[in-house]
Amino acid sequence: MKGGSIELGEVPRNATTSKGVKRGLSIMDFILRIIAGVATLASAIAMATTDERLPFATAFIQFRAQYDDLPSFVFFVMGNSVVCGYLVLSLILSIFHIVRSTAVKTRILLIVLDMVMMGVLTAAASAAASIVYIAHYGNTQANWFPICQQYNSFCERISGSLIGSYIAVAMFVIIIILSQVAISRN
Amino acid sequence: MKGGSIELGEVPRNATTSKGVKRGLSIMDFILRIIAGVATLASAIAMATTDERLPFATAFIQFRAQYDDLPSFVFFVMGNSVVCGYLVLSLILSIFHIVRSTAVKTRILLIVLDMVMMGVLTAAASAAASIVYIAHYGNTQANWFPICQQYNSFCERISGSLIGSYIAVAMFVIIIILSQVAISRN
Repeated sequence: MKGGSIELGEVPRNATTSKGVKRGLSIMDFILRIIAGVATLASAIAMATTDERLPFATAFIQFRAQYDDLPSFVFFVMGNSVVCGYLVLSLILSIFHIVRSTAVKTRILLIVLDMVMMGVLTAAASAAASIVYIAHYGNTQANWFPICQQYNSFCERISGSLIGSYIAVAMFVIIIILSQVAISRN
Repeated sequence: MKGGSIELGEVPRNATTSKGVKRGLSIMDFILRIIAGVATLASAIAMATTDERLPFATAFIQFRAQYDDLPSFVFFVMGNSVVCGYLVLSLILSIFHIVRSTAVKTRILLIVLDMVMMGVLTAAASAAASIVYIAHYGNTQANWFPICQQYNSFCERISGSLIGSYIAVAMFVIIIILSQVAISRN
């Protein structure tokens, strides 16, 4: 911008290049949002559809593991669903940024919302991860036994579902950095 | 900036006002960083110094609860310590922004680092929170018993230590939004 205000003749060319770069960043932003959305959706579905019944039962209890047995997993499914919904809605603004690559205020709005959603997703993923760890290894000090010895496929599914969430968190970090770069080129 | 390039005579006054606002934002940033730093330090110390021994023992086992019995709590202490160290170091850049309120590149660097640290802190806090929940209420499906019935003061301390972390996360959100505002006023 300094260069622009000193040599006024240079402005149009610079502005066009800058606009092109911004459009490129907006398109990347759009693609990354789709990837993150798919990743969170996959995580939510993978966690929410786990249902393992053990092949034996007592008179009163059927041994069955579902995600809503553990509140952290419920939070995980809700967090991923909310973030997935947000990502789908944010595509509208993302398209708007591709068309109008000089918009600044909507970009800042989007960064702030992205940041909050990244926080929600990180919280959901790590809350679930710490429970998955206990499920796998238990804790001898607290006398919590690893449930994965019984519920094998349940444990595989809940471990796998974390991956999507962490991919989405990584996407969010890149999305926010790209938006920063786009704003700073104003 | 648009106004500035059209009416060049207006630039100095606008620039001075904008500079003043930015300096104000930078000072607020500095104060919030100190608050967040103290909060994370308090959390880390509160968690790391818990040590409860029960007043009875068997021949082989002394019943004792410490934070490093649970990996999530170790991560919590480490996360809070790292973020606290970062916040102290970031004060240097924050002071630099008070002195040079027009700096943009260092602000963006700081926002990106803030964002990463906010992620680390959120992850640490919610991983610990989900274990604290299990410690309080246990889980009947997984046969994990609430350890808080035995370790009362340990549980109070670990629950309390979460507060500081969540305060720091809130501070980070405000800090990042303030930096965004400062950059957008360029």
